[in-house]
Amino acid sequence: MSEYNPGMDDNVLNNVDGNANIVILAGGVGGAKLADGFAQIVSSENLTVIVNTGDDFQHLGLTICPDLDTITYTLAGEANVESGWGRAGETWRTISEVSRLGGPDWFRLGDLDLATHLVRTEMLGAGHTLTEVTRHLCRQFGVGPAVLPMSDRPAPTIVETPEGRQPFQEWFVKNGWQPAVKKIHLPQDVQATVSVLWALEKADIVVIAPSNPFVSIDPILNVYPIREMVADLPEAVVAVSPIIGGQAVKGPAAKMMEEMEMPVTAQAIANHYDDLIDIFVYDTVDKGNVQSQHELLCTNTIMKDRAERLRLAREIMNFTMELINQ
Amino acid sequence: MSEYNPGMDDNVLNNVDGNANIVILAGGVGGAKLADGFAQIVSSENLTVIVNTGDDFQHLGLTICPDLDTITYTLAGEANVESGWGRAGETWRTISEVSRLGGPDWFRLGDLDLATHLVRTEMLGAGHTLTEVTRHLCRQFGVGPAVLPMSDRPAPTIVETPEGRQPFQEWFVKNGWQPAVKKIHLPQDVQATVSVLWALEKADIVVIAPSNPFVSIDPILNVYPIREMVADLPEAVVAVSPIIGGQAVKGPAAKMMEEMEMPVTAQAIANHYDDLIDIFVYDTVDKGNVQSQHELLCTNTIMKDRAERLRLAREIMNFTMELINQ
Repeated sequence: MSEYNPGMDDNVLNNVDGNANIVILAGGVGGAKLADGFAQIVSSENLTVIVNTGDDFQHLGLTICPDLDTITYTLAGEANVESGWGRAGETWRTISEVSRLGGPDWFRLGDLDLATHLVRTEMLGAGHTLTEVTRHLCRQFGVGPAVLPMSDRPAPTIVETPEGRQPFQEWFVKNGWQPAVKKIHLPQDVQATVSVLWALEKADIVVIAPSNPFVSIDPILNVYPIREMVADLPEAVVAVSPIIGGQAVKGPAAKMMEEMEMPVTAQAIANHYDDLIDIFVYDTVDKGNVQSQHELLCTNTIMKDRAERLRLAREIMNFTMELINQ
Repeated sequence: MSEYNPGMDDNVLNNVDGNANIVILAGGVGGAKLADGFAQIVSSENLTVIVNTGDDFQHLGLTICPDLDTITYTLAGEANVESGWGRAGETWRTISEVSRLGGPDWFRLGDLDLATHLVRTEMLGAGHTLTEVTRHLCRQFGVGPAVLPMSDRPAPTIVETPEGRQPFQEWFVKNGWQPAVKKIHLPQDVQATVSVLWALEKADIVVIAPSNPFVSIDPILNVYPIREMVADLPEAVVAVSPIIGGQAVKGPAAKMMEEMEMPVTAQAIANHYDDLIDIFVYDTVDKGNVQSQHELLCTNTIMKDRAERLRLAREIMNFTMELINQ
């Protein structure tokens, strides 16, 4: 079931006539925005988002899956667009009281957001898989596309720093991206779920969202056999640069690249995905600064509102379909 | 440590000169009210409340201890006096959202109350005992008296009905005291904590609060060696009837007594505790209807406000001290 055998699949181009099957590999905010763009142009049954669970952690007794929640809330139109995480119209009564009671309050759990973690934890405790729980939550939120955790097993991303190793959320939230990153450690022998395997087998186009390559996308690709399937199966693999003009739109990607002694450029991102992709999408700010053996799409990649998400998704879609149909 | 050896203790009367050590055995609301009465007349270092944990359960991933919380909130002056459970000024944002997400909403977790369960669950997960967690929470709530869970191990009370056995909270809250109770099952071989042993060794007076005898007090007495220590060690053991005029002030005690084919009377309560007590306290409504080999205190046992809690505690204290000093 978890064996990857490319010989078993004929890599049939399923429906690349406007009904192409799109699979997006996504982390949090950037991935969620692009997924929402595709959700506006692709029917739900043709759209799957495979989501990083390397950031997931246990906290206050609850199982918290930040990226799954950001994707779900965004696709539901219930994300907090100002903060980029959590729910719109959120309140903070419980976490304020946790703080008063001397409990850990560094991870800001909103009153609405808490409900998601409570229901998830209850369902996991009752024996449901994370895939089943996520499907249930998406249905309750009215989210149509398939949102899939990359794995049903914990696959924690560990950040190595000069002061030792830290679980991702502690480094990311509790310690505010400190200290410097020396290396990212991903767990060995994590297996993709059957749902992920099905989705990738049927994928015509895989889009690597403009999420952090090291702590959002690499953890997904590290889950066996996702990297192999992405490399072999789809008609086209598209990556969108999260680095624009030497900066990350959001999050610590640029800081990490500096600390890991990489140039903080869209080019470095193109190189990072070089063995996987057919198309690299980067921002007009970096026009002329990216060289690649692959196809290049240079466009406005900032998605300030839903219309811009749609526009970027459509541009990627049109560009990719043209390439496929050549 | 958990061995009860009465020969090792001389049953010294510690300070029965106004500084008597009082230990209250308590369930939820009735116990909390009487504990609050004693807290108004006894200094914190002389007052211990040993609390039923037979109602504790796991729900939505959290460890919930209804009686410990009722006692803590009441002693902190933060209990909801209208409902008799939960926090004053409570709101319900998270549980409403849990409901919307298709999660179990039969146990009404308030936003403030949730913080207690989150902090408790976090601390238990980090390896603290329930006694340590309760001490921490009491300090945060500014509660002076020692509030002690009867045991640090789960000791679930099970309700046997004609339709099978139910965990207590499911029968009590989810199923609204249905179906009829045939029998209460208490776990075997539960051991008291060291803190409970210390408190009982030093106790001059043990007060059995007007809590449900079958699902609040018996679970405490069932924890080894609490029954033996209560029977042997203190100068006086006082029980307060939760049955007044054939009814329970609150909760299913009367209904249970009917279903278990006991007369629903204060007399039946006196009989229930006959082998343990020196003094039985019952309400003026039942004047003349209780016979006992023990001392009887007939007074107003309803505690409608803090002043009435204080008055009842003082009456019990005076009556008991007089008996001890005879």
